[in-house]
Amino acid sequence: MITPLQQQFDAHVRALQDRITQEMKRLDPTLQMQEDLWERTDHAGGPGGGGRTRAFQGELFENAGVNTSCVHGKIDPAFAAKLQGQGDEMWAAGISLIIHPRNPRVPTVHANFRMIRQGEKTWFGGGADLTPYYPYEEDFRAFHGVWKVAAGEHYAAMKAECDHYFVNAHRDGEMRGIGGLFFDGFNRGDLAEDFALVKHLSEAFIPSYFPLVEKRRAEAFDAADEDFQLHRRGRYVEFNLLHDRGTLFGLRTNGRTDSILISLPGRCKFTYRYAPPSGSVHERMMAFYRPQSW
Amino acid sequence: MITPLQQQFDAHVRALQDRITQEMKRLDPTLQMQEDLWERTDHAGGPGGGGRTRAFQGELFENAGVNTSCVHGKIDPAFAAKLQGQGDEMWAAGISLIIHPRNPRVPTVHANFRMIRQGEKTWFGGGADLTPYYPYEEDFRAFHGVWKVAAGEHYAAMKAECDHYFVNAHRDGEMRGIGGLFFDGFNRGDLAEDFALVKHLSEAFIPSYFPLVEKRRAEAFDAADEDFQLHRRGRYVEFNLLHDRGTLFGLRTNGRTDSILISLPGRCKFTYRYAPPSGSVHERMMAFYRPQSW
Repeated sequence: MITPLQQQFDAHVRALQDRITQEMKRLDPTLQMQEDLWERTDHAGGPGGGGRTRAFQGELFENAGVNTSCVHGKIDPAFAAKLQGQGDEMWAAGISLIIHPRNPRVPTVHANFRMIRQGEKTWFGGGADLTPYYPYEEDFRAFHGVWKVAAGEHYAAMKAECDHYFVNAHRDGEMRGIGGLFFDGFNRGDLAEDFALVKHLSEAFIPSYFPLVEKRRAEAFDAADEDFQLHRRGRYVEFNLLHDRGTLFGLRTNGRTDSILISLPGRCKFTYRYAPPSGSVHERMMAFYRPQSW
Repeated sequence: MITPLQQQFDAHVRALQDRITQEMKRLDPTLQMQEDLWERTDHAGGPGGGGRTRAFQGELFENAGVNTSCVHGKIDPAFAAKLQGQGDEMWAAGISLIIHPRNPRVPTVHANFRMIRQGEKTWFGGGADLTPYYPYEEDFRAFHGVWKVAAGEHYAAMKAECDHYFVNAHRDGEMRGIGGLFFDGFNRGDLAEDFALVKHLSEAFIPSYFPLVEKRRAEAFDAADEDFQLHRRGRYVEFNLLHDRGTLFGLRTNGRTDSILISLPGRCKFTYRYAPPSGSVHERMMAFYRPQSW
């Protein structure tokens, strides 16, 4: 039985996917979109829902993915036992996006919002985090400012979870960016209220990010900016493939590889013992990949 | 108690590291080398050995790492229980290398050879695998041909293990290259004989690879060759960060991150649903990333 709230969440993320798509096309008239509709079978081989993957490439947005999915059906009992609900039937809907702009003055962003039901238990998860490559502190404050207002009393806890989650533990605890929000297993006992909050948060993505794109898109950048960006994108790859729970879970449960790895940057660099030049603006940027108040 | 064979293996891999370094410098006079000597503490905080990391960058060899290490001491008992020896004391020496040439007509190569002792049990592991980006079948036959001769009666089993190991399971079972040799837990009951074989195999690396570099280094390549190479390097990154046991083990046991991730290519690309152009020479190359006889 799909409840009205579940139906509404599914419809909401698909509508939000359209709004974000529209906003991206408005900002980048060169943007090419490749849309793929996919279906899956569940653990028992029955119908298991599917998704709508949208991959983008353009002059402003070098590569990006804005995906929605709504999956359901039987799950592996061994996996079911690790979740917080009951039984081996699951339903999950969500939106997940990563945008890698070409200009290093424009930050990379990730966001995702999902609703999950297992048996009689329902919960929400999601968040948004920014990966800038240039120390524009006013932009970091603006991004966090939007989330502070949107999350209200939950901001402090969700911000702390984000600082804790998007971390390359193998890189001496360096964060992949400057954080944002992260939450999982969210359930305060009133589904309608939780739904309203998560919907509200998901809509805050648009004002949290696109104004930064508009502000920085026309800025000139040099080879040093790009070199730093490409190396930080390398760290982004390390995080996603070594640590990101969603990526690893998706690949291990035979998810759609292309939709999952759409998160990887179009181009990146790896250099032994990479560090930005001493005294450079990029060296200054490094200090911001650590938890701090915004 | 370090046995004479252990001492000899450690000395052997360090001498081999020097020979390979020399060969690389001969082939690429622009080659810059950065050597780092490092030490570690063991699980109990005592002296735990260390290593010699050599990172290279040049016009022919875009980036490469040729590392040796000799580590020893207490290991985590939980980890010790998973190994085939006894007790929580371990000793391991080895050489590990990855070379990423700039010219896509010259293949990427990886090799490593190690000797491990835990309690009274000693075993060997290692292998070599080639990742070419252009369908020069004669080169693939030459590479396998050297290993066939060097491994003799062990070639078939070690070749099959390699085909099984260097696989991106999440990419529909695609191999990262055209294979070579892979072996682990190698112990036939006569340490001196095993030692001699593994030493012999490790020395075969030089004739297996550098003649291919000499043969192809001057070939012209175009943007399509490079685009394919950079995307295949992306798959190399996926394998190393998602599947490679040595990489994951090293990072999880607090190994030296920079020495471990020296394996990643200097530049790479990721594109949603990447596939080489239909009818291209690179599409033809794709068929070789599947197990076959050479």
